[in-house]
Amino acid sequence: TGQGTRDHPPAQAALRDRLLSAVVSCFKRHGAAAIDTPVLELRETLTGKYGEDTKLIYELQDQGGELLALRYDLTVPFARYLAMNKVTNMKRYHVAKVYRRDNPATTRGRYREFYQCDFDIAGQFDPMIPDAECLKIVHEILSDLQLGDFLIKVNDRRILNGVFAVCGVPESKFMPACSTVDKLDKVPWEEVRNEMVGEKGLSPEAADRIGEYVQLHGGLDLIEQLLQDPKLSQNKLAKEGLGDMKLLFEYLTLFGITGKISFDLSLARGLDYYTGVIFEAVLLHQKNEHVEEPVSVGSVAGGGRYDGLVGMFDPKGRKVPCVGVSIGIERIFSILEQRLKASGEKLRTTETEVLVATPQKHLLAARLTLISELWDARIKAEMLYKKDPKLLKQLQYCEDMGIPLAAIVGEQELADGVVKLRDVATREEVRM
Amino acid sequence: TGQGTRDHPPAQAALRDRLLSAVVSCFKRHGAAAIDTPVLELRETLTGKYGEDTKLIYELQDQGGELLALRYDLTVPFARYLAMNKVTNMKRYHVAKVYRRDNPATTRGRYREFYQCDFDIAGQFDPMIPDAECLKIVHEILSDLQLGDFLIKVNDRRILNGVFAVCGVPESKFMPACSTVDKLDKVPWEEVRNEMVGEKGLSPEAADRIGEYVQLHGGLDLIEQLLQDPKLSQNKLAKEGLGDMKLLFEYLTLFGITGKISFDLSLARGLDYYTGVIFEAVLLHQKNEHVEEPVSVGSVAGGGRYDGLVGMFDPKGRKVPCVGVSIGIERIFSILEQRLKASGEKLRTTETEVLVATPQKHLLAARLTLISELWDARIKAEMLYKKDPKLLKQLQYCEDMGIPLAAIVGEQELADGVVKLRDVATREEVRM
Repeated sequence: TGQGTRDHPPAQAALRDRLLSAVVSCFKRHGAAAIDTPVLELRETLTGKYGEDTKLIYELQDQGGELLALRYDLTVPFARYLAMNKVTNMKRYHVAKVYRRDNPATTRGRYREFYQCDFDIAGQFDPMIPDAECLKIVHEILSDLQLGDFLIKVNDRRILNGVFAVCGVPESKFMPACSTVDKLDKVPWEEVRNEMVGEKGLSPEAADRIGEYVQLHGGLDLIEQLLQDPKLSQNKLAKEGLGDMKLLFEYLTLFGITGKISFDLSLARGLDYYTGVIFEAVLLHQKNEHVEEPVSVGSVAGGGRYDGLVGMFDPKGRKVPCVGVSIGIERIFSILEQRLKASGEKLRTTETEVLVATPQKHLLAARLTLISELWDARIKAEMLYKKDPKLLKQLQYCEDMGIPLAAIVGEQELADGVVKLRDVATREEVRM
Repeated sequence: TGQGTRDHPPAQAALRDRLLSAVVSCFKRHGAAAIDTPVLELRETLTGKYGEDTKLIYELQDQGGELLALRYDLTVPFARYLAMNKVTNMKRYHVAKVYRRDNPATTRGRYREFYQCDFDIAGQFDPMIPDAECLKIVHEILSDLQLGDFLIKVNDRRILNGVFAVCGVPESKFMPACSTVDKLDKVPWEEVRNEMVGEKGLSPEAADRIGEYVQLHGGLDLIEQLLQDPKLSQNKLAKEGLGDMKLLFEYLTLFGITGKISFDLSLARGLDYYTGVIFEAVLLHQKNEHVEEPVSVGSVAGGGRYDGLVGMFDPKGRKVPCVGVSIGIERIFSILEQRLKASGEKLRTTETEVLVATPQKHLLAARLTLISELWDARIKAEMLYKKDPKLLKQLQYCEDMGIPLAAIVGEQELADGVVKLRDVATREEVRM
């Protein structure tokens, strides 16, 4: 395979299947319908949507037709789909591979081809009800998968922009300031401040004022505090964002999940298209017994509101408000895989219920007849592809593959018109 | 979307899901494990495997790294996988999209991006046992899907090559002759003969002799007849092929499926890599009451034995014999879709079991609390994303989406600590 892509052998494919079906069953539990969009998109659909990352889009060779590229995520194709089909109201999920022409860092679970699992709600609704559901979904999935303790950080682009405004940042520098703030989960404030002042050209005073805000995190109390903030409460955008954040926390309280939610002003998210609530879930790593400051082991889900993206694909610019979540299945997969390895547990890669076996030679016809009846009765059955396999080999195959039962037809059984059913683990046998 | 690619809206995605899961459950019933390979393959992996069709491979732009292409089918990646991982024994299925840089004929169900569903058995086994299982699988799937009457044509490349040899065709022209014979299901013998003599440079006498053979089809009787054929029985390859074909029919008799199998000497299959048994399933179209000569409505499954392909990827040329089948899911999908349309039946696109509703205003909190409890109890539930929706709107949504139940909490229910469960279709209500 090429660099940064990989095969999934049966053990991995089985684990991935199990993981994906847990995620999909949560999406279905919330009433989402599936859609499927092509891996190939027109290049023009993708350009101008991902900011600096546009350079990571995989383009197909110009072969004298349309200029095509491989999809970069599932959000932009979804927005294109809504606009093209004039859909203004939809709850959908999509589980599929996306492509990045990145330098693969396979050890950190970063690949050029990887799965995304997205759930999105499109439509004009009352504020924060769909947004709260997206957070509930993240909470359900991370709890279901038993990945350990986690934290969902929440913020709002309007609050961030309000902070920038009241700290004296000109509007043209909101986006650059935003992508610098986004690094706060990896580097200390000092470095972020240096980048703001150096690379992004903010004044040191503005940076310091920003620093006071973005290091805040909390819950309803912090929202109330900021709503009273003499500067922030004067900013229209920030006030809207804070009002909605308060509403969101009320709904999350009714869902009983605020224990794992943190209103965190340092959360910024990289992508251009977010317009409102943004969120990101991280797994927490507790050091032994003494619960110190929890150390993040990376983001496993993220999303937010993007009310302007669909309009970019509509000829008349008609907007469809959207909010959605993407589950970072590859990182979760790595964690589950390591855990499985550590446990020594062997995952079955097939679902075969019974092996059709014979203890003597010249009984291939009996095996073929019996297995055919089993298949027709919808029973998952296998046999060895040998005319005269040894019984020991057949039972060994059951043990290797985790097949629980062997249906044995010997000369005696054939004469009596019965089958001997053997429990491979206990070696108990019944004739039937 | 680009030419020859398409979105699958929820109704199509739901039908496709149902179809794919029927196919996958048959593959699992036969003990196959899933693997996944990347959409991106190295170009060199794909070149030289598809004969004339190599020009249809989609290549990625040369961006200063490896030269990549999109996979053309699932068979070549499987063979590459076996060789790379030194796997000599495996039963696997793979359901995934493949890509062809073809002129799309979307009305005939031909797209540039489409699903393939493959099942393959790799390994050195006793003759024709895995081959017979592949045919059983085709029989099971086409029966399960209730597509109407069908016929599975079977032939063997060794028999075809034997026929060419005894008819005086030089070995260098076997492949060209083969691809011409392959057209016999679409055009009459006269045209095929003209192409053989004209384009492919066979002598008219050779073409006429071939014509006598390739118009034959039948069952065990035909196999016996050809085994007695004074010329064919002298050809080593043909004799081997006919011997194995006889064995195959014995096994298919034990499976009870010979009624739908035809040994057909006109079946050739286009791809270079087949080395033994080949087969193709076609749906038969019966004209009204009077069962005339059945008219084929196109191939819906195909496959065969390819014992040389894995060796092409092994540095030492070590061979792994393989036989496999590919289900033509796109054609079957078109048929099922048309049938669904004709029946007027509406397929549900979501699985929601219950809508949480309120009959009065100011009850959003009650709805959020109840739905959260339902989700936590693994019940598929939805609610409208409005603060104060009208009850009629909520019940209308149930009818539109096929949601069978509404859980209603009003002021009275809230005071009594109960929920009113309403059957949307019958309008019956119970308090609980």
